[in-house]
Amino acid sequence: MPIYQAPTRDMKFLLHEVLDVEQLQKFEPFGEVDRDLVDAIIDEGAKFCEGVLAPLNIVGDHEGCTRHEDGSVTTPTGFKDAYKQMVENGWVALNKDPEYGGQGMPGLLAITVGEMQTASNMAFAMYPGLTGGAIKAIEVGGSPEQKQAYLPNMVSGEWTGTMNLTEPHCGTDLGMLKTKAVPNGKGGYKISGQKIFISAGEHDMADNIIHLVLARIEGAPEGTKGISLFIVPKFKLNDDGTPGERNTVVCGSIEEKMGIHGNSTCVMNFDEAEGYLIGEENKGLRVMFVMMNEARIGVGMQGLGQSDVAYQNAAAYAKDRLQGRALTGPKNEDGPADPIIVHPDVRRMLMETRAFNEGARALLYWAAMHEDIEKHTKDEKLAEKCDDYLGLLTPVIKGYLTDMSMRTTIDCQQIFGGHGFIEEWGMSQFVRDNRIALIYEGANGIQALDLVGRKLARNGGRALMTLNQEIDAFLKDNKDSESLPEFMEGLTSAKTKLTEATMWLMQNGMKDPNNAGAGSVDYMHMMGLATLAYMWAKMAVVAQAKIDDGSNEDFYPNKLITGRYFMLRMLPMMDAHLAKIKTGAEPMMAMEAAAF
Amino acid sequence: MPIYQAPTRDMKFLLHEVLDVEQLQKFEPFGEVDRDLVDAIIDEGAKFCEGVLAPLNIVGDHEGCTRHEDGSVTTPTGFKDAYKQMVENGWVALNKDPEYGGQGMPGLLAITVGEMQTASNMAFAMYPGLTGGAIKAIEVGGSPEQKQAYLPNMVSGEWTGTMNLTEPHCGTDLGMLKTKAVPNGKGGYKISGQKIFISAGEHDMADNIIHLVLARIEGAPEGTKGISLFIVPKFKLNDDGTPGERNTVVCGSIEEKMGIHGNSTCVMNFDEAEGYLIGEENKGLRVMFVMMNEARIGVGMQGLGQSDVAYQNAAAYAKDRLQGRALTGPKNEDGPADPIIVHPDVRRMLMETRAFNEGARALLYWAAMHEDIEKHTKDEKLAEKCDDYLGLLTPVIKGYLTDMSMRTTIDCQQIFGGHGFIEEWGMSQFVRDNRIALIYEGANGIQALDLVGRKLARNGGRALMTLNQEIDAFLKDNKDSESLPEFMEGLTSAKTKLTEATMWLMQNGMKDPNNAGAGSVDYMHMMGLATLAYMWAKMAVVAQAKIDDGSNEDFYPNKLITGRYFMLRMLPMMDAHLAKIKTGAEPMMAMEAAAF
Repeated sequence: MPIYQAPTRDMKFLLHEVLDVEQLQKFEPFGEVDRDLVDAIIDEGAKFCEGVLAPLNIVGDHEGCTRHEDGSVTTPTGFKDAYKQMVENGWVALNKDPEYGGQGMPGLLAITVGEMQTASNMAFAMYPGLTGGAIKAIEVGGSPEQKQAYLPNMVSGEWTGTMNLTEPHCGTDLGMLKTKAVPNGKGGYKISGQKIFISAGEHDMADNIIHLVLARIEGAPEGTKGISLFIVPKFKLNDDGTPGERNTVVCGSIEEKMGIHGNSTCVMNFDEAEGYLIGEENKGLRVMFVMMNEARIGVGMQGLGQSDVAYQNAAAYAKDRLQGRALTGPKNEDGPADPIIVHPDVRRMLMETRAFNEGARALLYWAAMHEDIEKHTKDEKLAEKCDDYLGLLTPVIKGYLTDMSMRTTIDCQQIFGGHGFIEEWGMSQFVRDNRIALIYEGANGIQALDLVGRKLARNGGRALMTLNQEIDAFLKDNKDSESLPEFMEGLTSAKTKLTEATMWLMQNGMKDPNNAGAGSVDYMHMMGLATLAYMWAKMAVVAQAKIDDGSNEDFYPNKLITGRYFMLRMLPMMDAHLAKIKTGAEPMMAMEAAAF
Repeated sequence: MPIYQAPTRDMKFLLHEVLDVEQLQKFEPFGEVDRDLVDAIIDEGAKFCEGVLAPLNIVGDHEGCTRHEDGSVTTPTGFKDAYKQMVENGWVALNKDPEYGGQGMPGLLAITVGEMQTASNMAFAMYPGLTGGAIKAIEVGGSPEQKQAYLPNMVSGEWTGTMNLTEPHCGTDLGMLKTKAVPNGKGGYKISGQKIFISAGEHDMADNIIHLVLARIEGAPEGTKGISLFIVPKFKLNDDGTPGERNTVVCGSIEEKMGIHGNSTCVMNFDEAEGYLIGEENKGLRVMFVMMNEARIGVGMQGLGQSDVAYQNAAAYAKDRLQGRALTGPKNEDGPADPIIVHPDVRRMLMETRAFNEGARALLYWAAMHEDIEKHTKDEKLAEKCDDYLGLLTPVIKGYLTDMSMRTTIDCQQIFGGHGFIEEWGMSQFVRDNRIALIYEGANGIQALDLVGRKLARNGGRALMTLNQEIDAFLKDNKDSESLPEFMEGLTSAKTKLTEATMWLMQNGMKDPNNAGAGSVDYMHMMGLATLAYMWAKMAVVAQAKIDDGSNEDFYPNKLITGRYFMLRMLPMMDAHLAKIKTGAEPMMAMEAAAF
């Protein structure tokens, strides 16, 4: 069975040594968030994920979810119990609003714990993950009464939530959606239509499921301007707030899919189901996008999680599996063969994955930290900077991290040879589960388009300019780091190339928007590489300082080795992406559509 | 259900216009191979694959193979009938030796038909594919009696074959294998041991299964020097040659695996099974490698096949699916949205796949043509050149083509958005089936090592020098192709960079073999890119000539458009690979193994 050990050392390194999580104490709700509390949460989170969630991962894949004739759905063996423990131990409420019973911890800590949950069992972690998104939408758009009615039980995790967007004929282009809402004369609406790909749409783990549903109120304008958001509870609430009468929303079938079998991906049929408008009529997408943006960061986290657990298993296998001899002569002379980790190409796949993982983790946590600061700072300039960074980096975290995790999980599977293809080893599952992360919450091509078409130019390109200034200041501060030349040179070069690509896209995208579209995914990867280079340079400075201070923990030199690998062996991709971007749209748009 | 339409136009372009298949007529066995015959075989092959094999592809994935308590295995619904048709129509015998009932067609034609078979149903095509390998081994190493006893029924396809190499503790490193052979006093051997991952190991489609088994004769030397090859038939032969008594080789279980569910991947248990030595004692690997080399080309073909069928479905979907509007304004004003093929990034994924497929097909067929020439020419110098090319390019065809097809099948799946993740659309299957191609017949990292560690330096580097001379001559011949500057410049630059990488590896690999190992996969990709660039330049010259001659078939300008895409948007990867190679082994070998 695959292993999972939460990377708590690396997590604590980032939270304490790189990001200084205690700086959040200056914000009133985080007054108690000191090093001991953070470490206790990380350690307890690790224990729960390693001991309870990880062993259920392969079970969930194997059994999947079962829909019964009445539309009810049973989750895989052990999921219900594990979810009960998760709720009872307060993991769902961790970073939620204390007003509704949450523990009010920083989002940064929720991301840290969330990474462990998704790495140990992605399909399982999606149930509380989607609840988080639904809570967010109600917080942003709901009335005080709606908040009071739904949030406490969702915050505790006793009720779960879903997002109902996609319909058979529309996913990316929500303007085409057809689900309709008709006022029911009692202040609510009758919702009718079919939604597909609804994660956690129906299951047996919670007393109620709160569906958030995009629909068009009868007579609303066409397109995206006529879409409203509704709460449709599985069980309508009694006057005392407890779940009562069953609503007419049912799971019509469960999709057979490539991965995340433990999560019930449902076709949901709404047959005049009772629903309640959130916020204003026809303004539903606005609320949905708030929730979606947070979800996108969560999807990037899923990619990292799968990449990390795949790495751990591949590294263990590479150290254990004896096969062949090192090119430089036997390393395990008494054994029948050397462990395959002696082979450079096995190392290449491991180092590539590790260098990506540690850089991606830094970027993810760094972004989460900015989100916490943005929410709580009274410094408007600082809040603006945080918001700029999040806007710019959300598509990169979603798109680049999951594109990369697809490659790394495949590489880690490759290390197992034939055994990687056999389901019992679990490596196939990491690849298959990870696969969805490139698709949902906006396919990665859409992320890239959001980046170059919207985020980059917003406020005259302020976000990237601010980030560049921050990097310049960092480079200036560390220009004397004689022991870290690869890091400072790598970062400088990455920044220069990213700037060149940005200029090219700005100039040529104006001439022909297809030029921007054609280079968008390459550009997203360049920004991913450049921001990871920045994270690596920051981490290297911290690690080097610890070494200079006399630390003899292997963690620090290994951090530098891993970072150097990133700088020397992964950053060269910048040139290839830049060259591709500069070819523009013509080579890919030249052929008539009919000829494909 | 997914579609498959054999790319017969492109196949005929390559066979007739680029490779001039009729040149093979000068070799005695191919006297009849004219254009009409070739086209008839292609068209009939297409009909069979599109009509019979393709519809069974998703059935095979869904049902898989079933092992019964007695060790017998049932293949998916329809497989047995389809196989019967395949045998009756003579497809298995197509390129086999007429001495044993084969039709004696060129291997090039078998590759062409094989591509259709594997594209329409990879799991199915593996049954006759493995038979081909087993035939090869008996042809190379078997006695006249063995050939007479086994080949006629294998050539017709009435009996199938397998390759039994891998054991639980060894795959790549066959020197460790433990299966033992003890003389039985009747001229044969008692074979005992366990083999795993045995494709087509047991099934219900043929009257007999001829297992080729690597085992160690009692008292043989340790390691690779003590391995012999045996024939172990499922049914021992009666005196009249018909299948008789059941041999003690049984399928112990079927592996649950990520893909190719329609092929029965078996654990095979040999319990003093009766076996017959092929060739000399302890020389089994030599024969096995002849067969393996041919199989490796076949695996590259599998990658191309999956990439092509994935492309066809993605292109059809991209033209059909309406979602969003073109960046340059609506292209389908009367519809609710534009087809997604208007989006540059969807185009990017399609063009990348198409440019790879057409280039890969050319390389594969070009190599197959050299194999036919090598086998039949009396010109020793020419035979040597063909053998050099095949040695050099076999690992590239296996490793580069399947690495790339992994990316392209994933990209094609991505075009389907959420639907790509749902099994009923079939895109997941192409990805999952393709996944094994990077692993079996020598994992891709092993291919890369074979290339840089063995093939490149063989005979003083003669193979690559000869190929470079051929490219130089081609460039000289076409230096006036003013209409094709991207092609000639791209090829020139690719050749220069490949040479630079080769020099670096030669020099630095001698200092430290890990330098060669560390750059091996990057180098394999460089050679893949460079040889595809050569193929594209060749194809472009032919296409341009047809246009200049007044052809108004769209096929030719589209060929140029696709090739230009390859040159402009895919060749830039050469620089990234070169830069990575030049960093050497140090960054990836620096960390202690225990720290992973």
